[in-house]
Amino acid sequence: MNGLLSKVEEVVTAYIAAWNSDNLDAMFRLFAPDAHWVNVVGMHWRGREAVERAHRVFFDLMFKGVDLRLEEIESVIALPGGVAVAVVRFHMESSYLPDGVVRPAGFYRLTLVLVPDGQSLLIAHGSNVGIVEEAQHLDPMLRR
Amino acid sequence: MNGLLSKVEEVVTAYIAAWNSDNLDAMFRLFAPDAHWVNVVGMHWRGREAVERAHRVFFDLMFKGVDLRLEEIESVIALPGGVAVAVVRFHMESSYLPDGVVRPAGFYRLTLVLVPDGQSLLIAHGSNVGIVEEAQHLDPMLRR
Repeated sequence: MNGLLSKVEEVVTAYIAAWNSDNLDAMFRLFAPDAHWVNVVGMHWRGREAVERAHRVFFDLMFKGVDLRLEEIESVIALPGGVAVAVVRFHMESSYLPDGVVRPAGFYRLTLVLVPDGQSLLIAHGSNVGIVEEAQHLDPMLRR
Repeated sequence: MNGLLSKVEEVVTAYIAAWNSDNLDAMFRLFAPDAHWVNVVGMHWRGREAVERAHRVFFDLMFKGVDLRLEEIESVIALPGGVAVAVVRFHMESSYLPDGVVRPAGFYRLTLVLVPDGQSLLIAHGSNVGIVEEAQHLDPMLRR
């Protein structure tokens, strides 16, 4: 399990480093060919090529130079076949939407599904949820 | 792969039926013991017991009688070890937040990670993203 955690850390660290250096070539070397992605507003991209093309468009539009910061790898669950599911909390700087409106800085919880690839892991799926701060006081599991 | 799809359909159909009949006992028979869940506002519940307790609180507060409708199982990816990742689009009726504010009806994309359990599948992870309708025209993969 510790071996799995360190493999997840490797992928997450490389993902954040690739994001922060606008290096999408490096980012998409971390993805499996049939990877899917659901972004924070619910767009669903199917296959690494589509995920990569969409990310390139959004980097050109709004994400270049916008810093991601890893807060915590909150959970890593080991599944059969060497598959892992991780939930990663991160912070993103404010950015500008394509229409010029500011997207404020905020926290996100990204689910990553990872599959073995030799001694490493590749991203087979991502789903990114924005943490709505003003709703968190309603979390029943934080009140107990 | 068709066998896998029909197993995913079984779980999704049972999940929606359990939701629509407020039958959380049936719903959580669909979950693996170490399942995690990230809800639509970014709450992260760890372990089936926590996911179930949190769902029971929200059913009491706001979800009882609020209908879910399956729109489409948009993708099913087969991973090693018999693991599957599915993206499911569904529609939820409007509901009332605990403070009385209306949560409007809308569409969601739920990622489910499923693990084999005998001849069936169990939910090992869920991550639910609200589809922001007014952002969808920016989806680069819909414009091509």
